[in-house]
Amino acid sequence: MPAGLSDSKEVLGGKGAGLAKMSQIGLPVPPGFTITTAACNAYAAGGAFPAGLEAETRSSVLALGKAMGKGFGDAHDPLLVSVRSGARASMPGMMDTVLNLGLNETTVAGLAAASGDERFAWDSYRRFVFMYSDVVLGITDEECPFEAIFHKHKKRLKVKLDTEVGAADLKKVVQECLALVKKATGKAFPTDPWEQLWGAIAAVFRSWGNDRAVTYRRMHGYPDDWGTAVNVQAMVFGNLGEQSGTGVAFTRNPSTGDKAFYGEYLRNAQGEDVVAGTRTPHPIEDLKTDWPRIYKELDQVRKTLENNFHDMQDLEFTIENGKLFILQTRNGKRTGLAAVRIATDLVKEKRLGKEQALLQIEPDGITQLLSPVFRGSEKDKAVKAGRRLAKGLNAGPGAATGRIVFTAEAAVAWAAKGEQVILTRQETSPDDIRGMQASEGILTQHGGMTSHAALVARQMGKVCVAGCGELEIHPSKKVLHAGKKTLREGDWLSIDGTTGEVIEGKVETRRSDLLRVISGQAKPSKTGDDARFRQLMKWADAVRVLRVRANADQPDQAKIAVALGAEGIGLCRTEHMFFGEDKLPAMQRMILAENPADRRKALRTILPLQRRDFEGLFKAMGSRPVTIRTLDPPLHEFLPHTDKDIQELSKAIDMPAQAIRARVEALHESNPMLGFRGCRLTGLVPEILEVQVTAVFEAAANVHKKGVKVQPEIMIPLVGHHAELRSHVEVVHRIAKEVMAKKQVKFSYLVGTMIEVPRAALTADEIAEVAEFFSFGTNDLTQTTLAVSRDDAGSFLPSYIDRGIYERDPFATIDRGGVGKLMRTTVELARATRPEIKLGICGEHGGDPSSIEFCHQLGLAYVSCSPYRIPVARLAAAQAALRY
Amino acid sequence: MPAGLSDSKEVLGGKGAGLAKMSQIGLPVPPGFTITTAACNAYAAGGAFPAGLEAETRSSVLALGKAMGKGFGDAHDPLLVSVRSGARASMPGMMDTVLNLGLNETTVAGLAAASGDERFAWDSYRRFVFMYSDVVLGITDEECPFEAIFHKHKKRLKVKLDTEVGAADLKKVVQECLALVKKATGKAFPTDPWEQLWGAIAAVFRSWGNDRAVTYRRMHGYPDDWGTAVNVQAMVFGNLGEQSGTGVAFTRNPSTGDKAFYGEYLRNAQGEDVVAGTRTPHPIEDLKTDWPRIYKELDQVRKTLENNFHDMQDLEFTIENGKLFILQTRNGKRTGLAAVRIATDLVKEKRLGKEQALLQIEPDGITQLLSPVFRGSEKDKAVKAGRRLAKGLNAGPGAATGRIVFTAEAAVAWAAKGEQVILTRQETSPDDIRGMQASEGILTQHGGMTSHAALVARQMGKVCVAGCGELEIHPSKKVLHAGKKTLREGDWLSIDGTTGEVIEGKVETRRSDLLRVISGQAKPSKTGDDARFRQLMKWADAVRVLRVRANADQPDQAKIAVALGAEGIGLCRTEHMFFGEDKLPAMQRMILAENPADRRKALRTILPLQRRDFEGLFKAMGSRPVTIRTLDPPLHEFLPHTDKDIQELSKAIDMPAQAIRARVEALHESNPMLGFRGCRLTGLVPEILEVQVTAVFEAAANVHKKGVKVQPEIMIPLVGHHAELRSHVEVVHRIAKEVMAKKQVKFSYLVGTMIEVPRAALTADEIAEVAEFFSFGTNDLTQTTLAVSRDDAGSFLPSYIDRGIYERDPFATIDRGGVGKLMRTTVELARATRPEIKLGICGEHGGDPSSIEFCHQLGLAYVSCSPYRIPVARLAAAQAALRY
Repeated sequence: MPAGLSDSKEVLGGKGAGLAKMSQIGLPVPPGFTITTAACNAYAAGGAFPAGLEAETRSSVLALGKAMGKGFGDAHDPLLVSVRSGARASMPGMMDTVLNLGLNETTVAGLAAASGDERFAWDSYRRFVFMYSDVVLGITDEECPFEAIFHKHKKRLKVKLDTEVGAADLKKVVQECLALVKKATGKAFPTDPWEQLWGAIAAVFRSWGNDRAVTYRRMHGYPDDWGTAVNVQAMVFGNLGEQSGTGVAFTRNPSTGDKAFYGEYLRNAQGEDVVAGTRTPHPIEDLKTDWPRIYKELDQVRKTLENNFHDMQDLEFTIENGKLFILQTRNGKRTGLAAVRIATDLVKEKRLGKEQALLQIEPDGITQLLSPVFRGSEKDKAVKAGRRLAKGLNAGPGAATGRIVFTAEAAVAWAAKGEQVILTRQETSPDDIRGMQASEGILTQHGGMTSHAALVARQMGKVCVAGCGELEIHPSKKVLHAGKKTLREGDWLSIDGTTGEVIEGKVETRRSDLLRVISGQAKPSKTGDDARFRQLMKWADAVRVLRVRANADQPDQAKIAVALGAEGIGLCRTEHMFFGEDKLPAMQRMILAENPADRRKALRTILPLQRRDFEGLFKAMGSRPVTIRTLDPPLHEFLPHTDKDIQELSKAIDMPAQAIRARVEALHESNPMLGFRGCRLTGLVPEILEVQVTAVFEAAANVHKKGVKVQPEIMIPLVGHHAELRSHVEVVHRIAKEVMAKKQVKFSYLVGTMIEVPRAALTADEIAEVAEFFSFGTNDLTQTTLAVSRDDAGSFLPSYIDRGIYERDPFATIDRGGVGKLMRTTVELARATRPEIKLGICGEHGGDPSSIEFCHQLGLAYVSCSPYRIPVARLAAAQAALRY
Repeated sequence: MPAGLSDSKEVLGGKGAGLAKMSQIGLPVPPGFTITTAACNAYAAGGAFPAGLEAETRSSVLALGKAMGKGFGDAHDPLLVSVRSGARASMPGMMDTVLNLGLNETTVAGLAAASGDERFAWDSYRRFVFMYSDVVLGITDEECPFEAIFHKHKKRLKVKLDTEVGAADLKKVVQECLALVKKATGKAFPTDPWEQLWGAIAAVFRSWGNDRAVTYRRMHGYPDDWGTAVNVQAMVFGNLGEQSGTGVAFTRNPSTGDKAFYGEYLRNAQGEDVVAGTRTPHPIEDLKTDWPRIYKELDQVRKTLENNFHDMQDLEFTIENGKLFILQTRNGKRTGLAAVRIATDLVKEKRLGKEQALLQIEPDGITQLLSPVFRGSEKDKAVKAGRRLAKGLNAGPGAATGRIVFTAEAAVAWAAKGEQVILTRQETSPDDIRGMQASEGILTQHGGMTSHAALVARQMGKVCVAGCGELEIHPSKKVLHAGKKTLREGDWLSIDGTTGEVIEGKVETRRSDLLRVISGQAKPSKTGDDARFRQLMKWADAVRVLRVRANADQPDQAKIAVALGAEGIGLCRTEHMFFGEDKLPAMQRMILAENPADRRKALRTILPLQRRDFEGLFKAMGSRPVTIRTLDPPLHEFLPHTDKDIQELSKAIDMPAQAIRARVEALHESNPMLGFRGCRLTGLVPEILEVQVTAVFEAAANVHKKGVKVQPEIMIPLVGHHAELRSHVEVVHRIAKEVMAKKQVKFSYLVGTMIEVPRAALTADEIAEVAEFFSFGTNDLTQTTLAVSRDDAGSFLPSYIDRGIYERDPFATIDRGGVGKLMRTTVELARATRPEIKLGICGEHGGDPSSIEFCHQLGLAYVSCSPYRIPVARLAAAQAALRY
């Protein structure tokens, strides 16, 4: 992207800059001009237009009229304009827009005459009055029920559609509405086009400060002083008859990334008709035969755009009486798969550098390449068996199978119970976002490739089949009709987001091809997605500074993590190792033992089993570092709680049920999260620590003897005070010494701690005297810093995010303002004591791109995340390194 | 106290400094010298004596011999020395002492010759061997059962008392023991006096690091690097016959504060005989007739000491062959009552300035003046009814009634269940401290006024009857015999620590006289304790900077708080107001309501009741500020949980039990402490906030109209993010405006928040934009910062304090290293945004002297504590102001 352009976004807003650039590179943009963001800020500060704004605007409008061959307020061929907001970044639907500005009793007649379509003219006037009254005059629906008035007339005329109302009746509607405005406001609706224009510009300025916009900015972290620009543009109309039309298009396929023009159009329609999903648009390919001249022009536009914007573009166009106008262009949203393909293709086409390519991909999207596909020929079999119900648009690629739910609430509730669900809606709206997130896939009856469901699903990396008109979906009745078949809530359904097919029943899914290659189940290709993926990761690895580790406890997890690029294990949770069938009874005996000797005896039976587990892990990880956390959860988690289970255990270990129950009760806690666990437990019951550490070092010694340069790192959880850690560190060193002496080997190891208690963060200087490394346990650190229990947050935290109190879920993305401050303090204090201290993160935030960026800024050594998030982390780390 | 003396304590330890000063002011101190604390620290660091120590010590010992006219190791008239520890502050019984050092086969004969008492010489040698083997050689009782050997000989001789064993048999005992030492250690017991001395000095140095001493330091917050001094002093003997003796005394009565010599002595005895309680000593008054010369000398010493130390002294003396020696002096421990009397008397006597007087009183002790006494003639009736079991020493004044327990563990356990207990022991030891803390009172069979039980009880302000020899206490059998009566664990018992009486059964207690005066139940006196108390508080108020408020919800609490000096209410917990019989059903209906309208309806019935409560509070507090916290606890606390209670509620409010149970289950939380409560709740159910705030402002308006300048302060709990607070503040301002308009009054009020969530502390700058005041909720702030649930901490926190991880219970005394850091950050950030912000504390720490000192250092405006702690807080605030 040439220098200066991002600047122009700051001044002209994203939309204004795009229009300016398109105009520069000779694309057919409706003439217009942009009032800068500086003017908005001046208006906000002074409550009035800055000096000179009116005069400049006036001359710009006159120039516009000249360019269009029309006159603003001209009685015969009036210039109409749109007045739109446009901030530095896209804030869809947050701010105000006024269309068709310049109409009044006189100009409407001129428009009718010039267009030869009186109905069109009066309908435009009606739309303008409705919009202006709402946006500029701030008239509420209660004060002036415009839609109700319109509806009343349609009822009188016994028609259903707006288009069935003729010019004469539209005139009646408009006049009735204008009278109402006068009554409600005490002032006549402005008829002077200039007065209309000043009002609209002021309204756009003001809309920067409306609640929706402020909330949106808070959510996205956009500063208030950006301000919005105002784009004033000559109106062009796609609804002037069959020589007019409108459409939206992507310069490449946003689902697959294919280098092919992709989009939809409608003749005799306005933009909103395409997006709203009320009329089903035609694929852009149809233009080739339907309207070859326009297709050729558009295809040229497509190339010009990509050459100049260096990215796949999402554009809006209108054809007015045979003349093509490009209304808007912006970088197009795409699936993860498409993102990888487009970015690598653009580099190959030399349209983009490698680093720019890395920055172009939403890291979260990559997970899509690892998401499941249908297993073997399962789907084919299902189709042959007649289970294919319908085919819709392949709006979000991938395979999903789950049980039908009809509302977002149900999706969330069922998913919370561990069910896989397919959210099935007529069409989706922003209210459905949480439900979409909770679902395996989304299926809609209405809407196209650019409908809400399709856009959001692609962004989320969700499987989606949209606009499946063969189905009838009745959310209120909780049924779905597919021809003669009826499916109900809870029935199994499968959708193929790559083909758009909808299949009755469950179709087993399997690993994606990329994952098959990565896990050695399939051979690598030279040009396929796996090759592109390798290419991209290579570029990312070359620039990133952060190392990436995996959270893994089992050798098979460790192997896939290494295949996905893990450079070590950042968190091995050893408690999982106690839950095995072969180990749990011994663990239970240990907990129920009445003295240290019995405890040790019970633990001794676990030792060889744990040692074997660790050997597997060390072998899988080779010479990479492996961080092993000692026991963290409270003891009661290992004991049965129901009478039946207690009875069974009683028999199994020959101990009275009464005694077991008493112990279970004694271990009960009011707030287990803040209770007797982690180092508090191993500090008082050191036998557990001893057996775990012995197992680690014996395993390390055994594997080391086979020539593997093991790097164990023992991590003590829940430390809040350096003295807690100190006693643990002593035990670790003692056992390490004993084992190495006994096994006659020597290898290096580290002892460190989690930072997950605020007090540990606040006293990191003291703790760093004892710890050789820190790993931020941001899950617990978030719980304690915010005093929010993750298990209980469901009753209020979602509303906090909706209300913009927290911009994002603090359990998904590090709360930089709170938890982040503590992390920064920790880093500073720790380095003051021990400059070479190794710092990492192993909370779930370690796989979140924004949090990874923050970790890069803090200068951590590594992030650790679940194996399947590793590619995301590698890319996010690279982006952070490129940005900061 | 003259300058330089406190320095000398740092170098010489308390005991050494006392000896040096006594020597300076001409008191008869046995000659000696002190090895400095610096030498101890050097020994601890290097594991060996610092250079020069041996040579200096050697020349000091030689000088000592010269002063005493004896020779160290001299065969004819040997110099014996004591080697004692002495830290900066008294740590009774925590460290080691060796007496009679310098004895061996040769010098024992010299001692026999010089004293003319062979038995005395050999008994001294026996004591030395026993003590040295234990303290210096570290020989355990299992290795060398000295006492058993001695006992065996007494059995053989058919005698009971040590004193009945003659010189020849003592010699046998000694020789048998010396042989055993050689066998056990493989080395002969050292016979060279110098070798003995080096061993003893090293042992004292080492004892600074023993477990007991470390624990004691942690409990009292003494730093490890103080080190201990070593006092080497010529031995003097009180057991050289009837012209010898020993005793301990206080210059004033430590129980009552009376200006009268107070103490105990024994003829022909050593110090340990007085303290151990094995022989019952005589009151010091008896000396007047028994040995008038010595009494006169002692009385002169008493005056000299008070004139020079400006405080009541606790002294030890020995008379050797008619010559008086003062072995030790230190500021005497005293009851709270005595502390107040002594301090005010010393000021009156012009021995002390007011400010020094304030610094002389342990703030916690004052609560004793407010602690209960027996109700009316209840005790007299009990005595008349023959329920008086015995009379012991009035070691800790006050009245206590409770159920008998025989061990410290039982005391802790029973108290945890809410039982009042009387800890009943033969004698107490440092192991019993926690049990003593948990008890209403302490009763011992053995020991005098200066026994462990007596000293510690007075320090704690606990009621104590000591040395009640009429009782037979059998802890192992859990019975107590009083003549023919037998009492068992759990039986009720009452003790009068002011008279020493022990009463069978429960005797109701009542308010103390001071509290009766304060609460208007009795008339003030001119010279009584209430007058002294007022005097002292006046002095305190004159110097303190911190304001003191009360945590109170009820008008009667508020009244007593004001009488005790409260300058406002710092925390009114409104949830208590929902628990009243007249309000709970409405609250429950509100919680169970299914929509905001029903919720409002239920809450409307609470409004007038809450308003009435607040009116009472405002009236009681007059023009003082009243901080009212809006609802804090989670809703489930208001609902029944047992089936029976649910059934009852179901009937009462005519709602199916099933529905109630479902709601109770829905409200269940894994970690309620971190759950849906405080502003999270009132943010989502604003009706609760609205009714509470309306009740506050309507009440304030009504009371204001009656001419009282009310100052309500609305406090929002559990805020973690400024946006949470913002929405609450808007509601408060809206309602305040409405109510003032409706009631046609105007008064000022504040809106602020608790700081109890780490995130709030970290973002105090943002929160201060919205809050007019902060009140540290250090209970919750400690829970979240340490990630420790107070309810669950019992399983590990006591061991943390025992192990010295936390020096003191962080829920009693602010953890300055962790929570304190957050508080400091908060103060700095808050003032940066709003320099005039009002800052206070309302956690339980607000009544803890050390925490109050910290609040003073932070520059808070006020502390708030329970009404009965207010005098403590006033005094502690004054001390803080004098110290910093």
